[in-house]
Amino acid sequence: MHWRDGYVAVDWGTTNRRVYAIDGEGRVAGTTGDDVGILAVPAGGFAAAVAGIRARFAGRPVLLAGMIGSNRGWVETAYVGCPAGAAELAAAIHWVEPGAVGIVPGVSQSEGRADVMRGEEVQALGALATGAIGPDALICHPGTHAKWIAMAGGRIGAFRTMMTGELFALLRQHSILAPQLDGPVTADDAFLEGAAAGLAGADLLSELFGIRARHVLDLGRGSDASYASGLLIGSDVRAGLDLHRAEPIGLVGRSDLRALYGAALALAGRDMIEVDGAEAFLAGIRALVELL
Amino acid sequence: MHWRDGYVAVDWGTTNRRVYAIDGEGRVAGTTGDDVGILAVPAGGFAAAVAGIRARFAGRPVLLAGMIGSNRGWVETAYVGCPAGAAELAAAIHWVEPGAVGIVPGVSQSEGRADVMRGEEVQALGALATGAIGPDALICHPGTHAKWIAMAGGRIGAFRTMMTGELFALLRQHSILAPQLDGPVTADDAFLEGAAAGLAGADLLSELFGIRARHVLDLGRGSDASYASGLLIGSDVRAGLDLHRAEPIGLVGRSDLRALYGAALALAGRDMIEVDGAEAFLAGIRALVELL
Repeated sequence: MHWRDGYVAVDWGTTNRRVYAIDGEGRVAGTTGDDVGILAVPAGGFAAAVAGIRARFAGRPVLLAGMIGSNRGWVETAYVGCPAGAAELAAAIHWVEPGAVGIVPGVSQSEGRADVMRGEEVQALGALATGAIGPDALICHPGTHAKWIAMAGGRIGAFRTMMTGELFALLRQHSILAPQLDGPVTADDAFLEGAAAGLAGADLLSELFGIRARHVLDLGRGSDASYASGLLIGSDVRAGLDLHRAEPIGLVGRSDLRALYGAALALAGRDMIEVDGAEAFLAGIRALVELL
Repeated sequence: MHWRDGYVAVDWGTTNRRVYAIDGEGRVAGTTGDDVGILAVPAGGFAAAVAGIRARFAGRPVLLAGMIGSNRGWVETAYVGCPAGAAELAAAIHWVEPGAVGIVPGVSQSEGRADVMRGEEVQALGALATGAIGPDALICHPGTHAKWIAMAGGRIGAFRTMMTGELFALLRQHSILAPQLDGPVTADDAFLEGAAAGLAGADLLSELFGIRARHVLDLGRGSDASYASGLLIGSDVRAGLDLHRAEPIGLVGRSDLRALYGAALALAGRDMIEVDGAEAFLAGIRALVELL
């Protein structure tokens, strides 16, 4: 079978994966998602796992992206250096089975600030391919390791990763603030207060302890979880906006995170275009397939 | 027995305690330290624990300071608000047994930036009492929750707590950086590179992920643990120096942490006077005892 008769796209991350079957018309014919992230696959087990996916979808060819190409995944694929567009990524696909099973490489930045990504590059190029954003847009992709991506002439020109989501999870699970950060996070008044402080360049080390101090002194803000999230995301957005002056900003990713980052971007007075992360992923894979 | 015939001073923290017996001449007659922090004492067990300490030291009166006065300790004592000097603290000692067993209150700041301390106030007043620092000095007290204390007319005028030590421990134990932060931390070149970035106002969220990216790209700095520590401490010192213009700075605490903060302060071009934390604690307790 050839790619034009349909293919399978897999977004395979650290803790979960999502499988999309694409038919000969380019439509999504089936989707499955589960928590079989790369860490859940035993050593040497990827070939069988991928064979299982292909068997479910009539032996169609497969493109895999994300942490599957990391040193914890199936095959460690070399990063493509910036600037990287669809052509550079397609040419550097690692073929486990030539023309039939490929892994999309990640993108690295070695000059200036060192940085790496695996998976977000497909979504960035997909957001561009749909026409939602322009060839020189600034993309914000929230997540455990949030990415700010400055597109340049339709390629990934530069980017910066923020440990925002992971740091919030660490504080929530393991820090002295844990009992206070237990609640849900929404873009409420406490979130906006935290985001305003972050956007203004508040010092994180003292502002975080301040959450504890206000609690002890009965000066709490209602939702400490929202405030802490707002503080970190505001700080993230402040640094991310430094990367690039483009307007509007493409906000690509999960809807719950888009709501939070969108609120912080609005507070910063910036326009944005929201793009669903799954749609961007599929469009990015399609752009690569068209170059095969 | 009365205080002038000798007493016992206990610095009782979350995870350890240190007990000092002071003789009638004001000299240290005995010291014990162990890991029986407040969390290691069962509910209702503090009276017996303190009775045990007194029994070992001829029934001398006892002053306790630190987290023993928190809601996780023996008796939750009310904070004394800033500005707070030895007179205010001595007057607010919580007497579990009148005149014989007292708990030194912590200090709070409710106006402006909310903040709290328990234990460091004794060291700050002690550093002043020894004459090592002046009545309007800026004190830096490194630790899990580092304190910057602006003295004003011999009292604690204002202060700011930084989550520096706790955040480093979280990153080292639980984050994606954990495998890289495993090594020892010293004031080496990597530490100074990190401290310079922190002092210059580097964005922590991206600089921390950059440690991971540099490792993945084989652009490591030798000691990632030292670099990360330097980055956090440099950021801490940058914000702490904002509090107060006093020169030199009193650097009070453990010798290993003084070495790191001292290197960052030197990089910032600031003079400092180092004061051992245990000596400052004893001088602070003595200053309170003299007011009883």
